[in-house]
Amino acid sequence: MIVVIKAGASPQQAQEVIDKIVAMGYSVNVSQGAERLIIGVLGVRDNKDVLAAQLGGFAGVERVMPISKSYKLVSREGAPTDTIVRINDKVEIGAGLVHVIAGPCTVEGSEMLIETAHWVKRCGATLLRGGAYKPSTSPYSFQGMGKEGLEILAEARAQTGLPIVTEVLDPRDVPLVERFADILQIGARNMQNFNLLKELAKTRKPVMLKRGLSATIEEWLLAAEYLYAGGNHDVILCERGIRTFETATRNTLDLNAVPLVKSLTHLPIVVDPSHGTGKWDLVTPMARAGVAAGADAIMIEVHPRPSDALKDGFESLTFDNFATLMDQVRPIARAVGRPVASDATLVIEA
Amino acid sequence: MIVVIKAGASPQQAQEVIDKIVAMGYSVNVSQGAERLIIGVLGVRDNKDVLAAQLGGFAGVERVMPISKSYKLVSREGAPTDTIVRINDKVEIGAGLVHVIAGPCTVEGSEMLIETAHWVKRCGATLLRGGAYKPSTSPYSFQGMGKEGLEILAEARAQTGLPIVTEVLDPRDVPLVERFADILQIGARNMQNFNLLKELAKTRKPVMLKRGLSATIEEWLLAAEYLYAGGNHDVILCERGIRTFETATRNTLDLNAVPLVKSLTHLPIVVDPSHGTGKWDLVTPMARAGVAAGADAIMIEVHPRPSDALKDGFESLTFDNFATLMDQVRPIARAVGRPVASDATLVIEA
Amino acid sequence: MIVVIKAGASPQQAQEVIDKIVAMGYSVNVSQGAERLIIGVLGVRDNKDVLAAQLGGFAGVERVMPISKSYKLVSREGAPTDTIVRINDKVEIGAGLVHVIAGPCTVEGSEMLIETAHWVKRCGATLLRGGAYKPSTSPYSFQGMGKEGLEILAEARAQTGLPIVTEVLDPRDVPLVERFADILQIGARNMQNFNLLKELAKTRKPVMLKRGLSATIEEWLLAAEYLYAGGNHDVILCERGIRTFETATRNTLDLNAVPLVKSLTHLPIVVDPSHGTGKWDLVTPMARAGVAAGADAIMIEVHPRPSDALKDGFESLTFDNFATLMDQVRPIARAVGRPVASDATLVIEA
Amino acid sequence: MIVVIKAGASPQQAQEVIDKIVAMGYSVNVSQGAERLIIGVLGVRDNKDVLAAQLGGFAGVERVMPISKSYKLVSREGAPTDTIVRINDKVEIGAGLVHVIAGPCTVEGSEMLIETAHWVKRCGATLLRGGAYKPSTSPYSFQGMGKEGLEILAEARAQTGLPIVTEVLDPRDVPLVERFADILQIGARNMQNFNLLKELAKTRKPVMLKRGLSATIEEWLLAAEYLYAGGNHDVILCERGIRTFETATRNTLDLNAVPLVKSLTHLPIVVDPSHGTGKWDLVTPMARAGVAAGADAIMIEVHPRPSDALKDGFESLTFDNFATLMDQVRPIARAVGRPVASDATLVIEA
Repeated sequence: MIVVIKAGASPQQAQEVIDKIVAMGYSVNVSQGAERLIIGVLGVRDNKDVLAAQLGGFAGVERVMPISKSYKLVSREGAPTDTIVRINDKVEIGAGLVHVIAGPCTVEGSEMLIETAHWVKRCGATLLRGGAYKPSTSPYSFQGMGKEGLEILAEARAQTGLPIVTEVLDPRDVPLVERFADILQIGARNMQNFNLLKELAKTRKPVMLKRGLSATIEEWLLAAEYLYAGGNHDVILCERGIRTFETATRNTLDLNAVPLVKSLTHLPIVVDPSHGTGKWDLVTPMARAGVAAGADAIMIEVHPRPSDALKDGFESLTFDNFATLMDQVRPIARAVGRPVASDATLVIEA
Repeated sequence: MIVVIKAGASPQQAQEVIDKIVAMGYSVNVSQGAERLIIGVLGVRDNKDVLAAQLGGFAGVERVMPISKSYKLVSREGAPTDTIVRINDKVEIGAGLVHVIAGPCTVEGSEMLIETAHWVKRCGATLLRGGAYKPSTSPYSFQGMGKEGLEILAEARAQTGLPIVTEVLDPRDVPLVERFADILQIGARNMQNFNLLKELAKTRKPVMLKRGLSATIEEWLLAAEYLYAGGNHDVILCERGIRTFETATRNTLDLNAVPLVKSLTHLPIVVDPSHGTGKWDLVTPMARAGVAAGADAIMIEVHPRPSDALKDGFESLTFDNFATLMDQVRPIARAVGRPVASDATLVIEA
Repeated sequence: MIVVIKAGASPQQAQEVIDKIVAMGYSVNVSQGAERLIIGVLGVRDNKDVLAAQLGGFAGVERVMPISKSYKLVSREGAPTDTIVRINDKVEIGAGLVHVIAGPCTVEGSEMLIETAHWVKRCGATLLRGGAYKPSTSPYSFQGMGKEGLEILAEARAQTGLPIVTEVLDPRDVPLVERFADILQIGARNMQNFNLLKELAKTRKPVMLKRGLSATIEEWLLAAEYLYAGGNHDVILCERGIRTFETATRNTLDLNAVPLVKSLTHLPIVVDPSHGTGKWDLVTPMARAGVAAGADAIMIEVHPRPSDALKDGFESLTFDNFATLMDQVRPIARAVGRPVASDATLVIEA
Repeated sequence: MIVVIKAGASPQQAQEVIDKIVAMGYSVNVSQGAERLIIGVLGVRDNKDVLAAQLGGFAGVERVMPISKSYKLVSREGAPTDTIVRINDKVEIGAGLVHVIAGPCTVEGSEMLIETAHWVKRCGATLLRGGAYKPSTSPYSFQGMGKEGLEILAEARAQTGLPIVTEVLDPRDVPLVERFADILQIGARNMQNFNLLKELAKTRKPVMLKRGLSATIEEWLLAAEYLYAGGNHDVILCERGIRTFETATRNTLDLNAVPLVKSLTHLPIVVDPSHGTGKWDLVTPMARAGVAAGADAIMIEVHPRPSDALKDGFESLTFDNFATLMDQVRPIARAVGRPVASDATLVIEA
């Protein structure tokens, strides 16, 4: 940690800061820069935030700059190899093949979901998505089918063999949702719902953690650290677009995050171009781009009839459009040396 | 709702959209603009989101633009007069006097809290703030004293008479926290924790709803609508800064929001310049600015010794600095014709 | 254009708005929505901004929403086919092959530039970049070699045959720079330097228009419209990252913009992952992603020794890293059916 | 300057960085933190950017963190006292009184301007604003009256005695505009038009530098440093709102910037709530807030008939509304101990 002393601070003000650091058990390395006195604090491993908060309270302090990252276990240094999240003997996320998670935004009924599940499997998806509990900006909007939706998802899994990704919103719902889901999703609005994170840290099911709308990479990895430090090591990150000044798209899909996260953490990362763009005609090119950037999986909203969708009609692909997406993503996945998982399986089986 | 048809759409594609709208029971008003066909949808009161989602699913649709606001009950049209949130016979927020809520970020112990409570009361604060449950970006940071913190707050209230504002993070904690708190705070990270909103909608205690870091005014008022529609009409908004590209301050305090919110809703609004700036030396000028912009209250972090604080040392005022803040805020409050409440009480009592 | 009348406006206030619109020679289409009166303005082709400004001045008006886009000539409807910018008989941008523009941020001397030019050509670049006039945030930073830099660029072109892309900052420098450059670059900070745009509209050289740090897609296309309407139809767009709250990367490369721009305009688009990330180890994956998203070209900063660079050492690729980038971009380009231009040329020549 | 070495870097990689620093003539202070090696670079006064760029080019470097600010002359340390910009013997900006700059967005004709000038003077404005050269997002919008507009401004000054603030867009127009203007305005879009800054650095007229839409405080002060270092010490800053995700207002007026800038620089600062909000009904409360935050002046758009305005009808105040604004700003200005200048003059004259 580096502490910058104000240009006009008195020697006594600087000394008070040094005394405080030493009193807390750390060493200091003081150097006089061209304009300011700089104090390096050595030996800080834990309680970094408390130390920073307290040093910030001194009148002579201009800035406190942390050097090491606040997350430990999920950092590259925290594990010798890349994390592979194993759902079953066919689906391993982070193991070098590109998985495709597809399905409707929301489970709206049995027929539409099962029809979609069969179609996306046929096209090459290896996981099924669908929301039973939906966060809605307006209290007057559809909030999901709840338990009935979970049961429909389970039926679709039974028929297709596709593992299920579904969101959990409330710590009280965790026991129920984890009975049904193969991967528990934490939505963007809940990325810093710390009690939900703590609850999910205790389950044995993998968790997919979506990046918050205005979350920095550092905050996102700290949220993952909550899961990891709490005992759940099967954590998958999901970039789904951030909020910026640009309103021509619903969100700004931050693909920079893909290679950056790969360099910072050993966890796998999914790209969601449906929420990341909010426009169905941008989903396929951005799915290609996500895979080219190095994503371990992509997650795509597909609906049999988007013009009947209860949510996200604007960004849902029709069946035909999803087939086209798969046709275009496959050669990109091969070009980066990480084929689409369903293709690879076919090859292995053949 | 206005539906804009794509420039290159066929007449049949446009007709499909019109048929859909009519089939859903609404009227249409079609007009041919210079470049695009425009369809006005008339009679939409509810299910606006579903309609927009579905119209967005048509290939011929370029854009769907809502006209009326999604929030109803909290809008200016939703109530004939300004909401006044009455805590006790001395403290009414929104009634024309400026209240000052002050106290430490976090309850760190009995002594520091009670010392602070007495001081802020003496300076003119009319409510006491302090966190017992703290959201922390890092799992390794202090997470609050929990129930013990609530008990200390209650003791401070018993000694000073100041009502307590404290945060609740988890729907499961609501019964406990509402036993102690006079105002239940929803933090910025939980503004769209919809199940927490629903739980708090059922309490009889007033709720202070902080604006999310990247929440639009519309989303903020929709979160308030969750509380209001769920039965809790004692809702107070709190502007605490938004996240922007500027990193010289911790957040960008959006004071535009104060008069804008006043024109859109009948709910009272608090300004929090401590989180809104993240720097103690900016807190006092921005407290003045918040009151000048029309805030019903300001909320200020005060700590007996910021350099011992467990959180937010950078933005906490010392006792002396808080006294200065009060000295500077008082004449501004009088200048806008809404004196600081403790002054007004003195006058009335005298 | 749609005019929304305030919920509480009087019939007379609404009538004044209607009278104004009719007096300006337009037709109106009035409809009473569930909560607000809506006035459609028909026949607006030009002077849209003046009309919007004036309608905004009425007390009864809540909002004015434009329907048609403000740009015309650069819009998809403005031309029957995609624009192809032809530099010479080998280099055509927008014609279906992916071009690679490479070179140092800044021309620092003859040797380093010519060495770089030979290398990037050998690796497959088809255009050379390099700044002679540099915008610098600080007045104390290097501002470029000026005319001498242009002469060095010309020498590199003479030796390698690579056309030159270089920036012009000042309307007064246009005559000089256009004598040397094959493509004149408008930097992000000058995207709305309207007099520079007007001056460049008069040259016969193609212009590459970088997106401003906080420019919406609409503003960017309006800046392109300045060039096009002023007589220069050889306009190339360049996405180079926008400014957001995220500081882990220098900018947020907005690849959503690539397919979106392709749907809105007939102009070609370049992606610049060097400025778009600000970190050399992210440049290659984001170059892959840019090509996968549909870019017509990528622009890459390459320096023989980044640790001696006068600018942008953090984001410059070494020669070896650039060779790797080309190796990785080639299969992606083939996978989207738009091979890297130098490969295609080889094939055609062979 | 602090250089953080990557966790996994080899000792040799670290040594290369140290050798480079020493070879450039600086001293180093190396310390081994808990996780990373930290190198303090001592003695860096100039060429900071080059050094940072080059160190960033080393493979072993994780981050380079500047400590001292890049601006010097405009910093608090750069001058012993606050800068006072003296326009004439009545108007001194930064001298402790609050000035009001008012007038239309654009000079649209002689009558409307002179009528406005008389009115704003009568209400208490001490400077007149009005654009003769206007930056327009669209090439089809009104671009200002040019020289004729300047002549009309001069006539209004002759009749009222109010000094004129007007914008210059192009380095080539500086000689003409400076003949007419009392304060030369640099618009937000030109804040980093460095050649325009250099040209204005040579004039003898004061310059008002608006903050760019996405400019950090640091970049803004560096732009001011261009003016100051180039010889023009009469520099006034103007906060006019930044671009954020919030679209309910045209911009987000960043009043945090007012006290922050006051602590960082000796230059005076103006607040422009008209552009900062884009809505006339928010202008008055935000003018109050700007003065309460400590602004040296406010700048307000006033139009005799906003519904006839050629620009910015939405944010222009009518004559009556401007009179109300002045009535409300006066007591705030007195409350912060810095009365509105026209009041103070009256007192002195009386």
